[in-house]
Amino acid sequence: MRKDSPLDLFFLGPKSEQRLLLKELVELVVDDYIFWRRNYHPKDPPAIPYRSLQGEAAEDYRARFHQELFELISDLKLDVPFFSPRYMAHMVSEVALPGLIAYLATMLYNPNNVSLEASPVTVDFELEVGRQLATLFGYDPATAFGHLCSGGTLANYESLWYHRAGKFLPLSMALACRQEGIEAPADLPREVWPLLNVPLPRAESLFQNFSSRAQELGLDPIAVLRRWSIGAFGDAEYRLQVEETFGETYNSPVVLVPQTAHYGWKRSAGLLGFGRRNLLAVAVDEAFRMDRGAYAEILRRCRDEKRPVLQSVFILGTTEFGSVDPLPELLEVRDRMRENGLDSAIHVDAAYGGYFASIFQPGQRSRAPDEACLGPLCRASATLHATDSVTVDPHKMGYAPYGAGAFVLRQGFLRHLVAEGAHYALDTQGLPHEDLGKFILEGSKPGAAAAAVILNHRLFPLNFDGYGNLLMDLCRLADIFHGRVLARNDALREADAPLRLLSIARPETNIVCLLVVPEDARTLAEVDALNRSAALRFGVRDVASVQGYDYLVSKTRIGSDTPYVRGHPFLSTLTRDRDSLTCLRLVFMNRWVSGETHEGREYMDDFLESLEEYVTAELTGGE
Amino acid sequence: MRKDSPLDLFFLGPKSEQRLLLKELVELVVDDYIFWRRNYHPKDPPAIPYRSLQGEAAEDYRARFHQELFELISDLKLDVPFFSPRYMAHMVSEVALPGLIAYLATMLYNPNNVSLEASPVTVDFELEVGRQLATLFGYDPATAFGHLCSGGTLANYESLWYHRAGKFLPLSMALACRQEGIEAPADLPREVWPLLNVPLPRAESLFQNFSSRAQELGLDPIAVLRRWSIGAFGDAEYRLQVEETFGETYNSPVVLVPQTAHYGWKRSAGLLGFGRRNLLAVAVDEAFRMDRGAYAEILRRCRDEKRPVLQSVFILGTTEFGSVDPLPELLEVRDRMRENGLDSAIHVDAAYGGYFASIFQPGQRSRAPDEACLGPLCRASATLHATDSVTVDPHKMGYAPYGAGAFVLRQGFLRHLVAEGAHYALDTQGLPHEDLGKFILEGSKPGAAAAAVILNHRLFPLNFDGYGNLLMDLCRLADIFHGRVLARNDALREADAPLRLLSIARPETNIVCLLVVPEDARTLAEVDALNRSAALRFGVRDVASVQGYDYLVSKTRIGSDTPYVRGHPFLSTLTRDRDSLTCLRLVFMNRWVSGETHEGREYMDDFLESLEEYVTAELTGGE
Repeated sequence: MRKDSPLDLFFLGPKSEQRLLLKELVELVVDDYIFWRRNYHPKDPPAIPYRSLQGEAAEDYRARFHQELFELISDLKLDVPFFSPRYMAHMVSEVALPGLIAYLATMLYNPNNVSLEASPVTVDFELEVGRQLATLFGYDPATAFGHLCSGGTLANYESLWYHRAGKFLPLSMALACRQEGIEAPADLPREVWPLLNVPLPRAESLFQNFSSRAQELGLDPIAVLRRWSIGAFGDAEYRLQVEETFGETYNSPVVLVPQTAHYGWKRSAGLLGFGRRNLLAVAVDEAFRMDRGAYAEILRRCRDEKRPVLQSVFILGTTEFGSVDPLPELLEVRDRMRENGLDSAIHVDAAYGGYFASIFQPGQRSRAPDEACLGPLCRASATLHATDSVTVDPHKMGYAPYGAGAFVLRQGFLRHLVAEGAHYALDTQGLPHEDLGKFILEGSKPGAAAAAVILNHRLFPLNFDGYGNLLMDLCRLADIFHGRVLARNDALREADAPLRLLSIARPETNIVCLLVVPEDARTLAEVDALNRSAALRFGVRDVASVQGYDYLVSKTRIGSDTPYVRGHPFLSTLTRDRDSLTCLRLVFMNRWVSGETHEGREYMDDFLESLEEYVTAELTGGE
Repeated sequence: MRKDSPLDLFFLGPKSEQRLLLKELVELVVDDYIFWRRNYHPKDPPAIPYRSLQGEAAEDYRARFHQELFELISDLKLDVPFFSPRYMAHMVSEVALPGLIAYLATMLYNPNNVSLEASPVTVDFELEVGRQLATLFGYDPATAFGHLCSGGTLANYESLWYHRAGKFLPLSMALACRQEGIEAPADLPREVWPLLNVPLPRAESLFQNFSSRAQELGLDPIAVLRRWSIGAFGDAEYRLQVEETFGETYNSPVVLVPQTAHYGWKRSAGLLGFGRRNLLAVAVDEAFRMDRGAYAEILRRCRDEKRPVLQSVFILGTTEFGSVDPLPELLEVRDRMRENGLDSAIHVDAAYGGYFASIFQPGQRSRAPDEACLGPLCRASATLHATDSVTVDPHKMGYAPYGAGAFVLRQGFLRHLVAEGAHYALDTQGLPHEDLGKFILEGSKPGAAAAAVILNHRLFPLNFDGYGNLLMDLCRLADIFHGRVLARNDALREADAPLRLLSIARPETNIVCLLVVPEDARTLAEVDALNRSAALRFGVRDVASVQGYDYLVSKTRIGSDTPYVRGHPFLSTLTRDRDSLTCLRLVFMNRWVSGETHEGREYMDDFLESLEEYVTAELTGGE
């Protein structure tokens, strides 16, 4: 089914088809860099005399270098062939050529993007990427704040750090007014609960108002607010301070995430100190999307119990199933609850799925066709503009080298409330703008990552001319694969085979989860055992050579009490002797999976055949 | 004064002296990788047909690629010449050649070190680096836990995350015993305050004891402890739980840092939610080292007020002055206080200075001479083994590419108490060891960073054969430079010049801070203005070409009420009309600073002359 496409050119290719281009560009950037050095104060003499480069010590060193490097690159050969269409396991692939070359070119210069003095060029790249992503999500790039970080997990911590500052901003303004004799803005609520439920855009206008009043008194509004912020007191003492000032306190804030949330969210509860018990998991439906009714129910409970909601996390592309939370419906629920006095900021964990939004940005030449399989993704993407922040990982569907995550905040003014700076980097006199380091969690970060992402985006824009086209193809491939699984299962049934093949849900992005099921299974344990065995067969092992891998897929687990299992006509009849079921997980990152092996079979079909063969042998061999 | 040295060969060289080696090795790793791909299922046909590589679309793409890449590398030429001996500004330099090549080689393979399935090779590199660093600091590599992260700021957050888990472990065991009917170990204290002051090594043996009792009851001790951990409840609710169970509560824990601590520590107080007001700054002495008496005083106050100390942070190499806290004396203070019922874990922020410990590790061929200027560093390094954890940045004095930070924990067992895992990465059946991702803050990280650090260490071992030798040279250069500043100041005084040159302290590592002082200054403002002007003259600007830089130095600020300013015979006489003074900061990362310009002057002398010239003109021009 494959057609040649300019999309192919984004990558080196599974057979290093574009090797000449890679080599040419590597040579270009290395030579260009070498001679940049030589042109800086050209008359200064060499530091390493030519003679000493020929000496015995230098020869020894080079010999050792070669030997150690050989060992290293020999070890690397046992790494996983992510580049191959035979790899359909995790959300990792080959790095796109532009990003790779840009990373190399920039690493030579070694800029550190926390400080303008250490990265006058690449900080601009990073801020440009931030604006591009803000635009992609429908935020106003002039007032949003977007930047890169080492990965999505960090960006998610940052969302909590920022939204905690935003959540408590009105309360801190009220505290500051009472304590420092500033006249409170007229529309600033007077009581704790409504102060904890001011929507962020309104908090921003209150903040403007507060600031001018503070300035009239000769006070620095940011300094005053920092003094009365939750970050100054810490969670426990801030509550005491609030109680002392207002005569009433508040309950522990909660964070709402779907049951499918990445494990990093649990860790964030420990790290940020709000507690794992206050991370509430919202039930998902049979296709692993946050359930609208369950979300409404939990918000109602929070309102009734007066539990402030720090943020609600919706997921655009779960890492386990690729499912997409129904953002429009969920936002409606939040909006209705807002009118009833309970507010929640919305953070979208699109670490995995953020780039899919580019499918729906028309390019100069073309736009995405309306395809049924893209419906949920389309509706969610179109709703992003109404959310408060987004995490997205350029090192996932952006095909940039690790580590390149990003955090994009709609209400960019919040950054001034969390800012912290170093003496040696505070003054930016003579430089074009503020240091990034003040507003982010990291203390140093490679400018090379910013260059890699920007070059990827320049050659493959964030619309249907570039990423959109590529990612739509991957979603379609997943949908086609899902269809083949269904067809094969029908064939197995007709042939009275001992095996059933289930695709867990129609894919909403580019992930398909499979279950192999013994036709005569009585218990979940039997199903689990068969899938474990298959996962081991097609999993990464401690190998002597990668040649041993024909196909690689990954695995995950599905809880036995999920709507999927409980609602399944067959699985629900089995004895529930296991808490969870192992299943196979395929992530389609590589368009060439629809290409053909040397035997003329499509890779995806060939894999399914190998899987059937292996599993059938397991089933019949065991008899 | 410079001699040729094999140390020079670690780097490309300011004139790209080792360009042939760089090019040869780049070509090797790229070719080697290209043909690795081609050898995986060699009979599978190419995915991009040869013909389509010659087509118009491909030509267009390559044209755009060249154009965009040219623009990118032209922008990069305006980056800062970190590689040059004329750059003495921030703690950044060129990347060492082995690290650079290893990063490139590994980036091609694109491993992600959070999961063995995505990095079977490079996770081993990372754990090996962890053991090397543990050994360097005197920890037992078999029981310590060390790993890489994106940078030291993150490693410092991690120290708090881990030590919070450790601090509250005994209390959580006591809670769990009462609540789940487990018999408490005999030597587990019964009251809250002593439970919050159990030294970590004793906590570990209590934990072993607790675990076997839990297991006897058929309970999973980790699961039980996680249920009763502070991470489960969150800070505020955990306190309530403790009060309910024990009938008494505890005060907010504090974190102690020297006044010189990196700004990231303030941020950590907001991020982890313990509050900036609970981050207590311990006074420093006139050379910017934590004051022993002040530390003892603050610990006494904490004991008297029953304020638990989450951790004390000592700094080995402050980023502003390169000063080294007197670890042996400070540890003695802690030990004495331990006997008086107050314990504190010790975390060493050696993000900057950790690699200097390699000076005191004898190599196979040689060992460091006893030099007076290395005394404080030597004593601090020899005490690291008695601390609880260390942050160190291979991307600083380890000359690795960004981002490569590291966290090393002596009591590695703590990692099981914070572990969190993903379903799709939990099982490591068939693989040699556990996933790293369970124990760290990040959710993805480049395997390339681990490869870069390991190759640097293999060619330049962490002892006097490798890093130790290089870093000792840099400390010596700083000391020599400091001496020259003193000598020049004497000369200026004798010549009745309008200028004085101060070196703020004898360097304890490789940083020298300078003040240029108008001889007739009456106020701190005058001194500040002159230094600001000099900092601008020798600082990074928004340039059209790097050729405009002759020398680059950085700046920092010194508080007007620091012992240095208050104790200085001249500065202390000036009107204190400023809170802080700008000063010039020079970081010696480059041995070639003692080489000669084309005019035959040593770079460091030439810089001093340029500085004097500029500042004198400012002073006399202003008259």
